[in-house]
Amino acid sequence: MLTRIDHIGIACHDLEATVAFYKRTYGFDEPHYEVNEEQGVREAMLKINDTGDGAASYLQLIEPIREDSAVAKWLAKNGEGVHHIAFGTDGDVADEAAGIAGKGVRVLYEAPRNGSMGSLINFLHPKDCHGVLTEIVQKP
Amino acid sequence: MLTRIDHIGIACHDLEATVAFYKRTYGFDEPHYEVNEEQGVREAMLKINDTGDGAASYLQLIEPIREDSAVAKWLAKNGEGVHHIAFGTDGDVADEAAGIAGKGVRVLYEAPRNGSMGSLINFLHPKDCHGVLTEIVQKP
Repeated sequence: MLTRIDHIGIACHDLEATVAFYKRTYGFDEPHYEVNEEQGVREAMLKINDTGDGAASYLQLIEPIREDSAVAKWLAKNGEGVHHIAFGTDGDVADEAAGIAGKGVRVLYEAPRNGSMGSLINFLHPKDCHGVLTEIVQKP
Repeated sequence: MLTRIDHIGIACHDLEATVAFYKRTYGFDEPHYEVNEEQGVREAMLKINDTGDGAASYLQLIEPIREDSAVAKWLAKNGEGVHHIAFGTDGDVADEAAGIAGKGVRVLYEAPRNGSMGSLINFLHPKDCHGVLTEIVQKP
């Protein structure tokens, strides 16, 4: 079951400048940084609020580290902006993805991959989700 | 102070079909519907989770009701997808917007306007927010 907005993924050209904007403008706290080599991105997770399921909602700022990464191609086409949204599940992400696939939505990975802060993730095809690239997240 | 992700605004061509997708695929509850004549949209608010500040996070599905509305023009250019993100404030939205304007971000309305479910809102210019149309929300 999906129990929260886990994060909003925002693609940017310059991670430090974008983090600085969010901290300066809104007073958000210092984020958690990490590199996801598989996705080809550096990212900053800014926690916005706790959620009723005992987890939290974040902004995920993502900057490509390779020109051939999916996010680099997306940025070249669209410019900076909201790249995807992510829902958190209270169960197993593989089971969640299988249940969603059974409703006719294409799941992008055959098996879950590594997401932010130790999570396991999968993505749903935006053409099956009214234009929204949608991620499913299982916290560690 | 901004204390939550209030909602993610998603533009769509057919509100009923998009609501049906979210309910069928993820099991989300029946939404709250309303029309915002000023914004030129019909909308459905799907509650996703409670938030630590005593409010909640929603998906806001929006369908234009006039061809000259901002959302209709955005849809014609971009197709269906994430249109804006919204943060909730625990204070007065006019004060919040003034504070943000003081940091060099353009605020779109001179005074707050009516948002979903009795809220007061304002918007920040996406070009000043790294490409993200950003809304500030004060709950009633």
